[in-house]
Amino acid sequence: MMSNFDIRAMAQAARTASRELARASGEKKNAALRAMADGMLHSCDKIFALNAEDVAAARAEGLTPAFVDRLTLNVSRLEAMARGLRQIAELPDPVGDITGMWRRPNGLTVGRMRVPLGVIGIIYESRPNVTADAAGLCLKSGNAVILRGGREALRTNAAIGGILAAAVASVGLPETSLAVVPTPDRAVVKEMLTLAGLIDLIIPRGGEELIRTVRETSQIPVIAHDKGLCHTYVDAGADIAMAEEIAFNAKVERPSVCNAMETLLVHVEVAPAFLPRFVARLVQAGVKVRGCPRAQRLVPGVEPAAEEDWDTEYLDLLLSIRVVESFEEALAHIARHGSGLAEAIVTSDHGRAMRFLREVDAGAVFVNASTRFTDGYEFGMGAEMGISTQKLHARGPMGLNELTCQKFIVFGEGQVRDSRR
Amino acid sequence: MMSNFDIRAMAQAARTASRELARASGEKKNAALRAMADGMLHSCDKIFALNAEDVAAARAEGLTPAFVDRLTLNVSRLEAMARGLRQIAELPDPVGDITGMWRRPNGLTVGRMRVPLGVIGIIYESRPNVTADAAGLCLKSGNAVILRGGREALRTNAAIGGILAAAVASVGLPETSLAVVPTPDRAVVKEMLTLAGLIDLIIPRGGEELIRTVRETSQIPVIAHDKGLCHTYVDAGADIAMAEEIAFNAKVERPSVCNAMETLLVHVEVAPAFLPRFVARLVQAGVKVRGCPRAQRLVPGVEPAAEEDWDTEYLDLLLSIRVVESFEEALAHIARHGSGLAEAIVTSDHGRAMRFLREVDAGAVFVNASTRFTDGYEFGMGAEMGISTQKLHARGPMGLNELTCQKFIVFGEGQVRDSRR
Repeated sequence: MMSNFDIRAMAQAARTASRELARASGEKKNAALRAMADGMLHSCDKIFALNAEDVAAARAEGLTPAFVDRLTLNVSRLEAMARGLRQIAELPDPVGDITGMWRRPNGLTVGRMRVPLGVIGIIYESRPNVTADAAGLCLKSGNAVILRGGREALRTNAAIGGILAAAVASVGLPETSLAVVPTPDRAVVKEMLTLAGLIDLIIPRGGEELIRTVRETSQIPVIAHDKGLCHTYVDAGADIAMAEEIAFNAKVERPSVCNAMETLLVHVEVAPAFLPRFVARLVQAGVKVRGCPRAQRLVPGVEPAAEEDWDTEYLDLLLSIRVVESFEEALAHIARHGSGLAEAIVTSDHGRAMRFLREVDAGAVFVNASTRFTDGYEFGMGAEMGISTQKLHARGPMGLNELTCQKFIVFGEGQVRDSRR
Repeated sequence: MMSNFDIRAMAQAARTASRELARASGEKKNAALRAMADGMLHSCDKIFALNAEDVAAARAEGLTPAFVDRLTLNVSRLEAMARGLRQIAELPDPVGDITGMWRRPNGLTVGRMRVPLGVIGIIYESRPNVTADAAGLCLKSGNAVILRGGREALRTNAAIGGILAAAVASVGLPETSLAVVPTPDRAVVKEMLTLAGLIDLIIPRGGEELIRTVRETSQIPVIAHDKGLCHTYVDAGADIAMAEEIAFNAKVERPSVCNAMETLLVHVEVAPAFLPRFVARLVQAGVKVRGCPRAQRLVPGVEPAAEEDWDTEYLDLLLSIRVVESFEEALAHIARHGSGLAEAIVTSDHGRAMRFLREVDAGAVFVNASTRFTDGYEFGMGAEMGISTQKLHARGPMGLNELTCQKFIVFGEGQVRDSRR
């Protein structure tokens, strides 16, 4: 499909808007967020009508029921989106925060101030709620945003984007502060990823292929979420009842999400007391279990785990279990196979708890709690723009602060520099 | 030139070393830094001998005297490098710093801990002092480093790198914590830039072409310093004597560096009282002056500035001057032509000072001080790994903290998540 859509002009308009947004007061941005929530509810009939067209087209194309379900909006989903925008309005404004200020011997006062990044491009797949969430987070953090959703949700996203932009304009902020790319043309995305002078950051949200393509193509910095291959390690001497609750929660509570456990590591000393009962509970909950030879010997019926199991993000009621000889072996397994999203230890030993915290290289490291807590809301950051599995700029759940950068500000009274001193 | 050098094996060894470095104590890293300083001084004859070979080859190739000077090591330069390493040892260790910790309603305690990035690749041009500075900063921040200097300094860098690595090994840290790429083969750099699983960050230091090539080629995140097109804006009602000192310092004290002023903006109200005397002082200091028509009318002898002057980083005793009608026009000029490195206002008006600080989009924004202070030492960060003109991860002078990332750490007592709540 070809289009003549001018993405550069859209990005240019966003850039211009971003300057005004950067100096908008928190009050004005909050008024915009409330107007966005109101606008979506007032214009819900229009959104539902266009969403019904997307849903009908998706059905006609034979897309899976799960896909169609994610695409479908109803009153309670729309209300949740509106509530999300109101919650963002309640969060503190990160822009203008001064995160430190110090005085130099020559009297200069140097500090760091949070400012917006500028223009953010978000490339995502089917869920239309991302349109509202991402628009709200970007607006609150003073960034203009260009939203490019999945082609199957094109009409829905365009409807939501138009309503949100009108709401932003209604409080006197630039209408081009947020824009939805109105075409599914892939050439437009490709061009978008070249606009390094106009767009400051690209956040892809979706499957592995989308993220790989964006990473390989983009000339703009990318923050992405790779995959979540999370471990729970049950240490020698761990509280067995606690370990069972934490590991069961990490696997079963919502297996389809990135912070669910995929591999359980169990110290050999605790394995005989822990594994048989725990696996029985898993099996009762419908979980299929694979394991190393030692795990298989301890629990009859466990299927053998192949080498690739240790690197597989199941996102399903499936678990691989490995019995390890030592704490060191658990650390080495995680270093080799973990995806850097979240890792947990269940232990009663303070020294090993602290070593695990320090040495495990992941966005979030837990002692005696479920990896399922890896989430912006659960961490108290209010709302999140996904979870970064990168190390640069943002690591772990990304809140409003991660959509800003810090500049140095310096107050002087006429100071000049003398390099010869 | 072709080589069979195995950069992947070097990066793999650095990756392995990085795990040990990440958990090394501050004391051990400081001992390594002092051993590195001692090693350079003890083995200075070897360094000077190999440096003399590089210098002779550079002369034979007909490289400029300025180039040969930058390449040449002598006792005082080597002592300065050793002193730099000892100063890094005195800085606080960023690794393990907990930058915030809070308790959630469910009793989880969530915090953020600084950890090393892992492996850093530095690609730089002729100055051999970068080899020691960069090695020291990376080691202190717990990162392994791969150093790829200019081909003209190959023998010098290899000598320094070998001595530094031996010093690191002498205190019991991995010898492969730092490594100098021993070949000028460009195919090796190209391959280095593809090793995204092994190297976490690339920092190019050098001219515009080097940085553009690295940015376009690298599959690893890059932090770079583009250029420094810095403005000083003299506001209406500014203290004229202060403005003269600040602007003179920004232009003349060291014109060849990125934080020197390239364009002076002067409010029309203050221009008649300020410009004639200031330009006379510049001319006396050997500065050539170009200006807009208004500046030319005020000061006879000023050459006309062409449109491209406003976008040119002179790095020389050359200044372009523009008289503006308003504060807004100054902001617009800076937004259009500034490179985002450093910008200064000289003003007596508090409101405009604060607007300039907030609204100017640059790594460092100054009120009543010279842009020449844009520097890690001057800001009190101790030592710097260059100045980032990017917004992501690090903006402005990069100190030790900017060579780390922050992970979330979570202490629980058995908490599990219930999404249905």
